[in-house]
Amino acid sequence: MSDQTPPTPTPHSPPEAFSDPLYRTGVVDLLGVLAYGELSAFERLAEDAKLAPGIPEKAAIAAMASAELGHYEALRDRLVTLGADPYEAMEPFVDTFGRFHAQTAPADWLEGLVKAYVGDGLAADFYREIAAYLDEDTCSLIMETLADTGHSAFVVDQVRAAIAHDPRVGGRLALWGRRLVGEALSQAQRLAADRDGLTTVLVGGADRPGMDLAGIGRMFARLTENHSVRMAKLGLAS
Amino acid sequence: MSDQTPPTPTPHSPPEAFSDPLYRTGVVDLLGVLAYGELSAFERLAEDAKLAPGIPEKAAIAAMASAELGHYEALRDRLVTLGADPYEAMEPFVDTFGRFHAQTAPADWLEGLVKAYVGDGLAADFYREIAAYLDEDTCSLIMETLADTGHSAFVVDQVRAAIAHDPRVGGRLALWGRRLVGEALSQAQRLAADRDGLTTVLVGGADRPGMDLAGIGRMFARLTENHSVRMAKLGLAS
Repeated sequence: MSDQTPPTPTPHSPPEAFSDPLYRTGVVDLLGVLAYGELSAFERLAEDAKLAPGIPEKAAIAAMASAELGHYEALRDRLVTLGADPYEAMEPFVDTFGRFHAQTAPADWLEGLVKAYVGDGLAADFYREIAAYLDEDTCSLIMETLADTGHSAFVVDQVRAAIAHDPRVGGRLALWGRRLVGEALSQAQRLAADRDGLTTVLVGGADRPGMDLAGIGRMFARLTENHSVRMAKLGLAS
Repeated sequence: MSDQTPPTPTPHSPPEAFSDPLYRTGVVDLLGVLAYGELSAFERLAEDAKLAPGIPEKAAIAAMASAELGHYEALRDRLVTLGADPYEAMEPFVDTFGRFHAQTAPADWLEGLVKAYVGDGLAADFYREIAAYLDEDTCSLIMETLADTGHSAFVVDQVRAAIAHDPRVGGRLALWGRRLVGEALSQAQRLAADRDGLTTVLVGGADRPGMDLAGIGRMFARLTENHSVRMAKLGLAS
């Protein structure tokens, strides 16, 4: 859902990259985590639809959920094209998303909206950073998948209106935003430690460019900066 | 979700029918109940996705939910075209569907599937019966909306496999199917009593053909028969 510009283009890995089994494993892992993340976003948003204050809001959040499912289907199809079993590829990430959503269950409609906006934005930025290091086909698919589904404006309007109505809401939601980022980073760190394939994609291999430590530092700086921009759009301190 | 053939074609009401304010009110009511029914089906199916035994089943049910949302959007747009406020048109039916779903909350994955199949099939048959008495544009939209979204086969396979695995499941689900129909009819009766507009569409007006009492009797016979066919497809006694 982020509308930030993607990071500076970096030379793509060539399609031959797939002849490296470590690269293929990494891409399958990455598509698996992305796909299950979208399916899990569908579930979370559909759940939030129950908290909607009225029919138009319920329908808007349901449309966001459906858009995530469309992304899920594109990613699943790509896994099939790569000859991978899409469900096996997603399985290792079921618990990660389960933990994340259990730790960040929204208490009300506004928390659900902030979570959708901030969480999806952060995830999209991160996946875009990684995509730059992938072969071109995989990269374009990920970029399309992450394109803003045009629902951000709805979230921004709802949150800003709520803060205008009761400024105390802003303080509570700002804290909530910080908690979301903390939890997302903690789950991401766990994933990186558990899944060598994912890390390999990021740091590159003998024939493929990757990020060095300084590059990873700069990436985190960009992610944090974009997160602050999103919070500011919602009218929240980050 | 029904794949029954629609009832014998009946002369449509002419487009001028809209000059009759009672007809217009009835059509807006009908589109309102249909639209909210689809939105509510989205919510219910998304909720059932949580009960799915695995990722492919979760994704399949989520796709069914998304298809219902697509129908919702077409109906909402038609209400806007008719100059009606779509959300006002849906509001009177929120409680009806709330009651129906509260009375028929599935206890497990299979009950959710049977509810989706049997409930959507019955609703689709009923709306098709009414659509035959409407102006052609409204009728075609309703027919398109109710077209099988291609997910029935998935439900039939799942339910039949479960019965093959444990035949006792069949007895429990057959009872569940009867309860669903009973609750649906009871809510439909309540709606018909409360919303004159809906009844007017069905029984016709001075310039429009409608159903007489015998016709309504035959319609219920057709609905019941189609329901039995659906139950048999699932491998269940009705």
